[in-house]
Amino acid sequence: MIPDLLVEPLVRRALEEDVGRAGDVTAGLLRADEFLKTRFVARAGGVVCGLQPARLAAALIDPALRFTPLTADSDIVAPRAVLATLEGPAASVLTAERTALNFLTHLSGIATLTRAFVDAVAGTHARIAATRKTLPGLRVVQKAAVIAGGGLPHRYGLDDAILIKDNHVAACGSVGEALRRAKDAAGHMRIIEVEVDSLAQLDEALPHAPHAILLDNFSLDDLRIAVARAQGKAILEASGGVSLQTVRAIAETGVDVISVGALTHSAPSLDIGLDAA
Amino acid sequence: MIPDLLVEPLVRRALEEDVGRAGDVTAGLLRADEFLKTRFVARAGGVVCGLQPARLAAALIDPALRFTPLTADSDIVAPRAVLATLEGPAASVLTAERTALNFLTHLSGIATLTRAFVDAVAGTHARIAATRKTLPGLRVVQKAAVIAGGGLPHRYGLDDAILIKDNHVAACGSVGEALRRAKDAAGHMRIIEVEVDSLAQLDEALPHAPHAILLDNFSLDDLRIAVARAQGKAILEASGGVSLQTVRAIAETGVDVISVGALTHSAPSLDIGLDAA
Amino acid sequence: MIPDLLVEPLVRRALEEDVGRAGDVTAGLLRADEFLKTRFVARAGGVVCGLQPARLAAALIDPALRFTPLTADSDIVAPRAVLATLEGPAASVLTAERTALNFLTHLSGIATLTRAFVDAVAGTHARIAATRKTLPGLRVVQKAAVIAGGGLPHRYGLDDAILIKDNHVAACGSVGEALRRAKDAAGHMRIIEVEVDSLAQLDEALPHAPHAILLDNFSLDDLRIAVARAQGKAILEASGGVSLQTVRAIAETGVDVISVGALTHSAPSLDIGLDAA
Amino acid sequence: MIPDLLVEPLVRRALEEDVGRAGDVTAGLLRADEFLKTRFVARAGGVVCGLQPARLAAALIDPALRFTPLTADSDIVAPRAVLATLEGPAASVLTAERTALNFLTHLSGIATLTRAFVDAVAGTHARIAATRKTLPGLRVVQKAAVIAGGGLPHRYGLDDAILIKDNHVAACGSVGEALRRAKDAAGHMRIIEVEVDSLAQLDEALPHAPHAILLDNFSLDDLRIAVARAQGKAILEASGGVSLQTVRAIAETGVDVISVGALTHSAPSLDIGLDAA
Amino acid sequence: MIPDLLVEPLVRRALEEDVGRAGDVTAGLLRADEFLKTRFVARAGGVVCGLQPARLAAALIDPALRFTPLTADSDIVAPRAVLATLEGPAASVLTAERTALNFLTHLSGIATLTRAFVDAVAGTHARIAATRKTLPGLRVVQKAAVIAGGGLPHRYGLDDAILIKDNHVAACGSVGEALRRAKDAAGHMRIIEVEVDSLAQLDEALPHAPHAILLDNFSLDDLRIAVARAQGKAILEASGGVSLQTVRAIAETGVDVISVGALTHSAPSLDIGLDAA
Amino acid sequence: MIPDLLVEPLVRRALEEDVGRAGDVTAGLLRADEFLKTRFVARAGGVVCGLQPARLAAALIDPALRFTPLTADSDIVAPRAVLATLEGPAASVLTAERTALNFLTHLSGIATLTRAFVDAVAGTHARIAATRKTLPGLRVVQKAAVIAGGGLPHRYGLDDAILIKDNHVAACGSVGEALRRAKDAAGHMRIIEVEVDSLAQLDEALPHAPHAILLDNFSLDDLRIAVARAQGKAILEASGGVSLQTVRAIAETGVDVISVGALTHSAPSLDIGLDAA
Repeated sequence: MIPDLLVEPLVRRALEEDVGRAGDVTAGLLRADEFLKTRFVARAGGVVCGLQPARLAAALIDPALRFTPLTADSDIVAPRAVLATLEGPAASVLTAERTALNFLTHLSGIATLTRAFVDAVAGTHARIAATRKTLPGLRVVQKAAVIAGGGLPHRYGLDDAILIKDNHVAACGSVGEALRRAKDAAGHMRIIEVEVDSLAQLDEALPHAPHAILLDNFSLDDLRIAVARAQGKAILEASGGVSLQTVRAIAETGVDVISVGALTHSAPSLDIGLDAA
Repeated sequence: MIPDLLVEPLVRRALEEDVGRAGDVTAGLLRADEFLKTRFVARAGGVVCGLQPARLAAALIDPALRFTPLTADSDIVAPRAVLATLEGPAASVLTAERTALNFLTHLSGIATLTRAFVDAVAGTHARIAATRKTLPGLRVVQKAAVIAGGGLPHRYGLDDAILIKDNHVAACGSVGEALRRAKDAAGHMRIIEVEVDSLAQLDEALPHAPHAILLDNFSLDDLRIAVARAQGKAILEASGGVSLQTVRAIAETGVDVISVGALTHSAPSLDIGLDAA
Repeated sequence: MIPDLLVEPLVRRALEEDVGRAGDVTAGLLRADEFLKTRFVARAGGVVCGLQPARLAAALIDPALRFTPLTADSDIVAPRAVLATLEGPAASVLTAERTALNFLTHLSGIATLTRAFVDAVAGTHARIAATRKTLPGLRVVQKAAVIAGGGLPHRYGLDDAILIKDNHVAACGSVGEALRRAKDAAGHMRIIEVEVDSLAQLDEALPHAPHAILLDNFSLDDLRIAVARAQGKAILEASGGVSLQTVRAIAETGVDVISVGALTHSAPSLDIGLDAA
Repeated sequence: MIPDLLVEPLVRRALEEDVGRAGDVTAGLLRADEFLKTRFVARAGGVVCGLQPARLAAALIDPALRFTPLTADSDIVAPRAVLATLEGPAASVLTAERTALNFLTHLSGIATLTRAFVDAVAGTHARIAATRKTLPGLRVVQKAAVIAGGGLPHRYGLDDAILIKDNHVAACGSVGEALRRAKDAAGHMRIIEVEVDSLAQLDEALPHAPHAILLDNFSLDDLRIAVARAQGKAILEASGGVSLQTVRAIAETGVDVISVGALTHSAPSLDIGLDAA
Repeated sequence: MIPDLLVEPLVRRALEEDVGRAGDVTAGLLRADEFLKTRFVARAGGVVCGLQPARLAAALIDPALRFTPLTADSDIVAPRAVLATLEGPAASVLTAERTALNFLTHLSGIATLTRAFVDAVAGTHARIAATRKTLPGLRVVQKAAVIAGGGLPHRYGLDDAILIKDNHVAACGSVGEALRRAKDAAGHMRIIEVEVDSLAQLDEALPHAPHAILLDNFSLDDLRIAVARAQGKAILEASGGVSLQTVRAIAETGVDVISVGALTHSAPSLDIGLDAA
Repeated sequence: MIPDLLVEPLVRRALEEDVGRAGDVTAGLLRADEFLKTRFVARAGGVVCGLQPARLAAALIDPALRFTPLTADSDIVAPRAVLATLEGPAASVLTAERTALNFLTHLSGIATLTRAFVDAVAGTHARIAATRKTLPGLRVVQKAAVIAGGGLPHRYGLDDAILIKDNHVAACGSVGEALRRAKDAAGHMRIIEVEVDSLAQLDEALPHAPHAILLDNFSLDDLRIAVARAQGKAILEASGGVSLQTVRAIAETGVDVISVGALTHSAPSLDIGLDAA
């Protein structure tokens, strides 16, 4: 769904910071006619993501490299699964591999963590969503990794939807006033969501019919009450204190969405290596 | 040590991916003369890093914002410490805060994890080093975060030093041949390091007097033997299987450097929030 | 609402294509200490837009230039109104003026045309909206100009909202199938709109409860029937054959939004000149 | 004549502002193997321009798209003429089409308006020229569209030629002094033109033998007198108050060039649609 | 005459290639409060150029640096002349100095060589001009350096003027045919020059009244004949075999312009150093 | 060793500054089906460098151009040698040729001058090295040209190695203190070199065991003494007053490296022309 056009600049920058000004001085030791065939191999089980930037990294270093995906983004793989192969001039393979791996391991790490949360709420109504707590410059691909793991991307940026938070409410004077201004400003193409931190604020918000309400740091009991009161008139999103330990209980309160900043700011990488084939 | 010139493009891109095409539509609800004073507060203890990009994020959004650091990079802070303040037009504060936080939490996370490894080897001879397993586009600031945590940055890219790995050895035919070619190609301004995976390869490498030797996945016993054999004639770097649990034992073998990919590819973010002051 | 960060690259490119490689060779004839005070004067009545890029154009050419806005975006001005003043080194004024004027006249032209449509439907329920038929590279500022004229920006791009058009329906098989897929894919932060070209398709769409329905090229009678059938359950947007002559009749059918491509692809510029003050 | 190198960055930016951060979310609903064949069809008669950026838009979105021009820039076409075809993966066609159309309709609009002016002066000596009143960022392609319509591009920027305007004359003291300085500064590769607003100024300019003289807002009578006085010693360009109604009379005074800002700042787009083939 | 806007990107790139990814690691050894005052001192006599990029280099590294020019571009200086001072934080001075010097020494070198040619033809009618044989990426500043040395910049690029060379003549069939096509294509804002390599070709060119004729590799005798035949009806430019030894004799033939590729492709740098003040 | 990724942006900028905004207006006179076959011919003997950017220049102007190298970088060629051929559409050949030649002549000039220095020290132990005195924006390719000529590139930038110069020593207090700080800061991947200007300073430096010592402006006698004292414990680099006349005597003192700024700041271009084939 993401055209190469969007991802290529990220890959180009990643390669530029790796090849620096002098290029790969170690690969320069090899004979030009040396050929190498390699495989990207999962060392742990997980969800695949990042094949597109890995492919682009190879293509940008040397059009003579052949990158062959054997899996697809969102595939669940077991340890030792071969995700893709890369073959061609040995020097080019060795120059491109680390950048390709850096994308693959990071994005597969996010997809894998997302999938763990998604699996944890399986059978409930709730969906898992990311936040804007992404690593600088990587939002496009990190959101794609969340989607690959079965999650929702949430807002891509500040211009995507109106999300009224506590500071906005404070500045506007009240939840009601903030929502009135939002209705005026939103136009017909933009979701309005408001963050509330109490049932009282929820009650204040509901009559204004926002598309969604973010219940921040609600207790499980309050989440259940909120679900009852909202009666499906707004999408209810829970956030705060969400972990793999707590997420199922939160989901079972009946909320629609659970957002988890850790998906993008703290996912450990998936261990993937490049082996000679 | 890093001029703004180097960091500003990263901050600019991070802001661009956040403000998108329409700007901050929620901040647009606020009155232009609304003023806000906020504080970046650590919610957990750790090592500070990222004040420079946080400052730049504020400045790029609105020169009227005032960012005041109360700590410095590499400072160790306790929970509830105030790292910096940010004040100015409320809309601008709210537009800039997430990008500033995304840098601060990520880079402080890396500095904090690095410091944990550094502390774990305290009293030994060993230093902790990063690798090229960095997140795409963030190498400059991630390496700075490792330094802030007391670690060594290792190579910044493929052109920094010659690091001969197994695939290069295979392509050259032998450790010795690879080192011979490296000596020819390196010039006088470039370190030469060779990766070995056995004591036999170590013995092959030592007579060529590389500046450094990377002992990959050596057992503790073999590390000790390697230290004995090298007699300080080359810097010895250990890698593979390094965790907070294993690192001290590795350090106590007498190696000079222990490199840890997780510092940059899997550091969880440090929890830092923005509070109204 | 739009940070300079977003607009500055456009202004920079516009200046670069004007100063070329040799700079302003005619301004080069002037003495360096020549000073000039000028005024941007409307030669026709209209709605002001473009003060931000005009200010940036001056600042980028020479920080010694002083640009003083005397009006604000969305102000309605009469002929001979002074929109802003520009003063400073004569050579710099003359180098910057055309680029500043090109933004001002174009964006004020869009705001003025938008306002004419908005005024034409005054008293009805309908709002005027732009489309994605914008001039290449200018979407951010053209949408801002539509807003300055009292219109809605509609989608900023293909990633903003799901808008199912005839070709998508054809590819999916039916309006219903397309909407089913959209519900699955949209997440909770994205509006879903579907284009229909007949009352029959409208009936097919309504049960799926899209946020909005685009009635393309409907007759006035059919628009009225559509409004009656939708009963406010979806935002109704009319498009096709909209002109200043027809727009009021369309608005009086009761539709919520009327979108007009001409706002951005065919607005004549507002005549604004730079006079010595 | 314009290499893709020059036009590609414009197309890339136009696509980037359309695909945003999440890509085409509606096209994402389609099956990957859906194929689509479409035609760019003129809905009104006019002069074709913009095939190059349209082709590049398709290529940048997906190399698998096939763009086949059936006309060439400057071709005059009747309503229903097929300008080009575009076929390939349906999702890619739908992602690329609007950007391609935005270039085609805008540039063909300029070419068509230019041609109307050119036709209006047919049989006279006069040529129609554009000005620097172009839309920001689009000068290269707008000038090409004027050429496609049979017009002259005039200066591409401030560094192209010396064009002394009223403010420059005022700052230099007199037309004569301005022209003296221009002769000194111009070198041998740059045209010198001076704007005059009276026959008296014309008389002052002629002895300095500028390549061209711009007669700004001259009456028809004064234009005729100017032509007589200049005796072909300088190219005479008329500007001010030029419309399709007035241009022929201006041309019949014998001036060499008539410049028209509206060609680039106010040309309505040519109506072109994309139809399934 | 050249706005900073045009020069800053070159300076930024030059600094980026110098500070690399880790910044100035040697300056990093200094204490932050160390202050340094330095002077740019000519070690040889010459013509100054490059103060603008030197100033920008300092400003881009650290706004706390103070760069004070004591000379101006085109000033002729003696050995030991102080061109400018630079003072501020010692680390910043040391980081910025080399880039500033690289601009100053190269551009002053060009200005100095140009001045030598200009002085060599003093008293004759001829002016010295550069060519398009410039170093990649540096055309804007190299042309400015030629101007600073008293020379003419000639064409800035392929779009500046029509310059018909031997290959164009061959492809068009004859000098006459090439000039006919040029007249048609040039418009009123572009100089037409034609290169001829014999008196016969000169005779063919003259009746078409090009603005300028380039006499390539003519003997001194033929140059004299060419001057006589042209009778001032076209600017005559000589090129080929021009050196400081030959240029005066060429100038004395009466040609108007003598173009010298070596000004920009082979000028040795002017020796300028940075001394502690 | 340098991927196209690194060189393409330089070539793109060089082409952009040549084709400007209107493209090659002279090539525009040719018929589109005109074909041209040309050869890059050395007019003087020298060392080839720049084939990569020359190839890229052709490819970026027109993929239909065929560039065929007949030599390789570092080849030594005699006058009249054909370095490469370029054939394809005549207009494209003529548009691309100057940029291709500007790279070839400049970089071959550097390689040729470097080779002259290398040849001058043949039989001695010394190697010739470049400096950071490169032309702005061209460091990557200029260093490659030095390597092509048989020289060493030395530091690519300020972050490559620690090179302590006189100003650093002054600021640190002494050579010893500067070296102590350097050891602390350098990590294990960075060479430390210190510049000394007397034998006394040499003696101060040697016990700190820097990798290299730069002997600045030493007399031949002092160089010999320095070689004797260092006993191979540090690489000795000589700089200052190096010319083709003096370099052999310097080399014969036994130093390891001789660095020459003139290689990159003052190398005259190698004369290469494009001939019709």
